[in-house]
Amino acid sequence: MRDAFHDDLDRISDDLVEMTSMVDAAMKRATSALLDTDLATAESVIAADDDIDQLRRDVDDRAVDLLARQQPVATDLRMVVTAMHMASDIERMGDLARHVAKVARMRYPESAVPQPLRDTIAEMAVVAERLAAATGKAIADKDVRGANEIEKIDDEMDQLHRKIFGELLNQHWEHGTEAAVDATLISRYYERFGDHAVAVANRIVYLVTGRYGTEDEGLQD
Amino acid sequence: MRDAFHDDLDRISDDLVEMTSMVDAAMKRATSALLDTDLATAESVIAADDDIDQLRRDVDDRAVDLLARQQPVATDLRMVVTAMHMASDIERMGDLARHVAKVARMRYPESAVPQPLRDTIAEMAVVAERLAAATGKAIADKDVRGANEIEKIDDEMDQLHRKIFGELLNQHWEHGTEAAVDATLISRYYERFGDHAVAVANRIVYLVTGRYGTEDEGLQD
Repeated sequence: MRDAFHDDLDRISDDLVEMTSMVDAAMKRATSALLDTDLATAESVIAADDDIDQLRRDVDDRAVDLLARQQPVATDLRMVVTAMHMASDIERMGDLARHVAKVARMRYPESAVPQPLRDTIAEMAVVAERLAAATGKAIADKDVRGANEIEKIDDEMDQLHRKIFGELLNQHWEHGTEAAVDATLISRYYERFGDHAVAVANRIVYLVTGRYGTEDEGLQD
Repeated sequence: MRDAFHDDLDRISDDLVEMTSMVDAAMKRATSALLDTDLATAESVIAADDDIDQLRRDVDDRAVDLLARQQPVATDLRMVVTAMHMASDIERMGDLARHVAKVARMRYPESAVPQPLRDTIAEMAVVAERLAAATGKAIADKDVRGANEIEKIDDEMDQLHRKIFGELLNQHWEHGTEAAVDATLISRYYERFGDHAVAVANRIVYLVTGRYGTEDEGLQD
């Protein structure tokens, strides 16, 4: 009984890790679509989001099936429930990559990102990749230290988000309102991507230690 | 056994309805803080979000406890899991109200909303209230027709969101970049408030009919 349960749970955990790889690739490619004004890549990111959504549904269905068949209690039960919550957060990270790709598509063949913001957006994408990778690793290892690291990486994302706003609100901004609106949304998408990684991290901390992190997902910005 | 289970489930359902009332009030008051540049109200919305977060945690804890004690299967199991997902979406609606209040606080004593956008933001707030009320009612009644109605109301929200963008991208926009950035975020918060109401509605449809809605939460914008 217990072995079958843990085998099933491991498979769910593997799928969560796979989801983090998918959203990692999605955000990386969305950024490339955005900065290189690459319509085909934008379209493929948008289309591929269905696969992430489907995997999330599979995780949910298998988690419910596992609850029904094995009727776990205590920590085992908490792990299954947590897996469903994590799947929800990671799926949402995929949506945010799709949003970035949609902005790229909407402005094509123009670039949605004016020159002064390009480097910061590129940095946000690098941080997003580190967050997705760290999230996958923390899930695979059920590692509290790794989970805490995610919050620190997300602080870098928040700084970059503020830097974008600093540029936009600088009196020398000369790229007009449309570019400012686009940049506001794009920057928000990367920042939210990080918030969901932190939400997953807090779930891991809660699972392992029984305590909520300093910033649980209900307290995020 | 079954009666104890359904009593507990009813209590969770009541709490979800209570959460919709709380986020309804939060968004109404956040809008008032925003449009009337009322700092005290903004602060109180921000502080009160903790209560919504706490109620969400209570719902989660009681749902897990219910799973452990009663080990429901089939539809009963699905209902408990769905309740947890709904709690997550409604809690997020509260976060979005808090975000609106934070913009109001950040710009105080100035208004974050320039004159040409005031009416549309006020309309978005009315639609948000209708969405929160319809969501509470659909949860209480487990009503698919009510749930489908939520999607229609949300279409109005999406139209208003586009209207805001239309104003911002109008060549006669003369309120500067900061106001455009603020309005972009504010409008996005109301729109996302609606998306989460739709996500709850789709959960209800799935619970009652076993089918996903046309737009499940993974396919939203």
